[in-house]
Amino acid sequence: MFVLSAKDGKPLYSQLYQQIRNNILSGDLKPGTKLSSSRHLSKELCVSRTTVDMAYQQLVSEGYLVGKPRSGYYIEALDNLNLPVFMETKTEEEAILNEPVKSPKYNLQYGKLETAIFPFRKWRQLTNKCLRDDKEQIMSYGPAQGEHGLRTAISEFLREYRGVECTANQIVICPGTQYCLNLAGQLIQPSTNAIAIENPGFWAARSIFSNMGFRIIPVPVKKHGLKVKQLRMTDAQAVYVTPSHQFPTGNIMSITRRLELVKWARESDSIIIEDDYSCHLRYNVRPIQALQALAPDQVIYIGSFSKILSPSIRVAYMVLPQKMVDRFLLSSEHFPCSVPFLIQKPLELFLKEGEWGSHLRKITRHMKKKRGILIQALKHEFGDAVSISGGNAGLHLLVQVMSQLSEQELVARAFQAGLLIHPAGNLWQDQSDAPFGTVLLGYGGIALEDIYPAVQLLRQAWLEDE
Amino acid sequence: MFVLSAKDGKPLYSQLYQQIRNNILSGDLKPGTKLSSSRHLSKELCVSRTTVDMAYQQLVSEGYLVGKPRSGYYIEALDNLNLPVFMETKTEEEAILNEPVKSPKYNLQYGKLETAIFPFRKWRQLTNKCLRDDKEQIMSYGPAQGEHGLRTAISEFLREYRGVECTANQIVICPGTQYCLNLAGQLIQPSTNAIAIENPGFWAARSIFSNMGFRIIPVPVKKHGLKVKQLRMTDAQAVYVTPSHQFPTGNIMSITRRLELVKWARESDSIIIEDDYSCHLRYNVRPIQALQALAPDQVIYIGSFSKILSPSIRVAYMVLPQKMVDRFLLSSEHFPCSVPFLIQKPLELFLKEGEWGSHLRKITRHMKKKRGILIQALKHEFGDAVSISGGNAGLHLLVQVMSQLSEQELVARAFQAGLLIHPAGNLWQDQSDAPFGTVLLGYGGIALEDIYPAVQLLRQAWLEDE
Repeated sequence: MFVLSAKDGKPLYSQLYQQIRNNILSGDLKPGTKLSSSRHLSKELCVSRTTVDMAYQQLVSEGYLVGKPRSGYYIEALDNLNLPVFMETKTEEEAILNEPVKSPKYNLQYGKLETAIFPFRKWRQLTNKCLRDDKEQIMSYGPAQGEHGLRTAISEFLREYRGVECTANQIVICPGTQYCLNLAGQLIQPSTNAIAIENPGFWAARSIFSNMGFRIIPVPVKKHGLKVKQLRMTDAQAVYVTPSHQFPTGNIMSITRRLELVKWARESDSIIIEDDYSCHLRYNVRPIQALQALAPDQVIYIGSFSKILSPSIRVAYMVLPQKMVDRFLLSSEHFPCSVPFLIQKPLELFLKEGEWGSHLRKITRHMKKKRGILIQALKHEFGDAVSISGGNAGLHLLVQVMSQLSEQELVARAFQAGLLIHPAGNLWQDQSDAPFGTVLLGYGGIALEDIYPAVQLLRQAWLEDE
Repeated sequence: MFVLSAKDGKPLYSQLYQQIRNNILSGDLKPGTKLSSSRHLSKELCVSRTTVDMAYQQLVSEGYLVGKPRSGYYIEALDNLNLPVFMETKTEEEAILNEPVKSPKYNLQYGKLETAIFPFRKWRQLTNKCLRDDKEQIMSYGPAQGEHGLRTAISEFLREYRGVECTANQIVICPGTQYCLNLAGQLIQPSTNAIAIENPGFWAARSIFSNMGFRIIPVPVKKHGLKVKQLRMTDAQAVYVTPSHQFPTGNIMSITRRLELVKWARESDSIIIEDDYSCHLRYNVRPIQALQALAPDQVIYIGSFSKILSPSIRVAYMVLPQKMVDRFLLSSEHFPCSVPFLIQKPLELFLKEGEWGSHLRKITRHMKKKRGILIQALKHEFGDAVSISGGNAGLHLLVQVMSQLSEQELVARAFQAGLLIHPAGNLWQDQSDAPFGTVLLGYGGIALEDIYPAVQLLRQAWLEDE
């Protein structure tokens, strides 16, 4: 089934990892399937057991496999993860065979939001209003950058709330942050083939830029943010950063570091891609101005409504340096904006009609409360057995568990107990750099009253012997 | 203002064309501005008058300029065209200065649809139903390929109506045909850097592939479709075609030609990108099976709801060869589907609830009627002075006017009379190959009762001496 070749140039474990992963993604390996033990597989393939173990470990930490203690490795039920879902069940029989091993009790994955967040009633009103009042626009192609009204509303919010200096003509509305990253990649491609990325950092950025053919240069993140000195030693002419709330460490880039970064960008005529992904949600810290404000000509600024309204609404935005607007317009000729008018217009009205301010306050208050309870519960249940970081903004905590359990064992045990959590290892370019036993706990999707019971379950799964 | 250099490598007229175009796109040249006469500008730049004339002519045929008889060349009011709109009016004063020269009476541009087409009431009901019933899904990231239910509904429609053989797992939902073309480009990029395109052909395909860095190889289209013999002489490993209703000629690719094309693709292991853009609208011709049915392993099939529901709804779909599904899934990891759930789900319900069949019949009947009246009106008003082609499907006619008027004069005179129409020249790779005096008349956006008066106006503008 798996064909490994010493001549391939890639390490054997990496070949094996790739082939299993492809088989999972193509559906040839169905969720719930148990893989051969590493002892068996290593014999079958005539490779060392370590080779197989390393491949399995990689797959576990990326969430493709779950290791069950004293049982073996199983293919994860992928539709429970934030991965593309592609399994098609052709017959009812197959559907039964494909049933996930266990349906989870609590979802602590990153990206999911509670239904309580979305203004369902208001959205219905606003959509209905558009369907009534804007028929002509619904039947035409709109501007490539997105509706002017929405761009104006966003530029006003950004000025007031983030100190971003821009006009509506610098804004491009996109269907999601990933689309923004792709577009940013296209815009910088003429001038660089190497892009520096925070390490640890946002997995999607690494994956998207790397798929576009960029060489990825990981640059370490410390307490005050990305190490600019190290960046200076590379040939990158672009860098991806999350300065206001580093993903996943939560560190805030210091002003000294920001100025250094801007100096680097100016001197080397480079571009900074600033992902302000959690800009709407901030707790207990003074407002931090966006990096864009320091160097509007060097920064592509990216924001999104996925964490404050809905992940499935698919609206993000980027603020381009003025000099890039022409390049965007030329390359987007004959390419209409990809966000439907029936999403853009209700959102514009929502931002303008004064609902936005109270929505922001309400959601921030709610998320802050959940974050507080999650921290409290973790401290209460685990005491000194966990180390928590990353919590002054956003929707996640980075949690290191002081035990003998590796990251994949933590994720597997949580899964067994009915909890979905993310491994943190794949946030590091080289997973061996990741701190031992660290996971990401997202609290956007879990209800307030479920947090304590979920953490109790985690303690049982992690600290109590079976 | 314009700096031309003989050392640049590019022809002088092309440099001038590029610079004026950039100035228009950046907003430095405002709509309505009159350009210097070619006599003046040629003196100022120390180039021949032909150089300036050629640049102007190119800009006119691409719709950036309008030539007004006995007056000169003016910057087009770009938001009346299907071009990206990017002018931002910063003050009310500027807004007045930027007002279009004249607001058009009739819109015969391609892409616009009448408001009567869209099921506004039904869409409101379906959206409201989703906002009520699907709260969990609205707050989660969906599958990368799009919602399973929508993909199933599309696969069923495609099988029944177009003979396309596929399962839902080969379908990818995308925000528009342009996005599909971009994605198709990414998927074939590893195996080819040259792509053959019908000549004449769809402007957006040429522009998108060329922006992605592909070398474009134009292959002529004759009565029975793309000349496969000529394609064989190229090194292209991918070809873009519109076999069921060639854009813009309306020719149907004969079955012999289709089989030749498939043979070429199989022998050279190449990919055919089939854009079935007008698949929903067919008049007076027997159903023509999609090319995909002949070679599902060699064809990327693309369809869209822009011409049958709404251009601003941003839903298109592609059917991938089974072997490409894995490649798509690997490259789209961490990249959620870009179409909002709140668009995907109402569309799925619309397709499933039996409204779809009657919608298709209603719109086809209506468009067929409009097309009949447009042809009748053209014959009545122009007699033998026009030659009409391209009309067995879709939403446009290709019209050659037998007069001394060039394409740009036809478009300019129509504009003066209050009619927006498309020039046809830029559908040819080399505009000098375009038949003299040919324009594209779109009838998707004009009301039935406006067709006759619009054509009468056209006759006055084109055939009567001023």
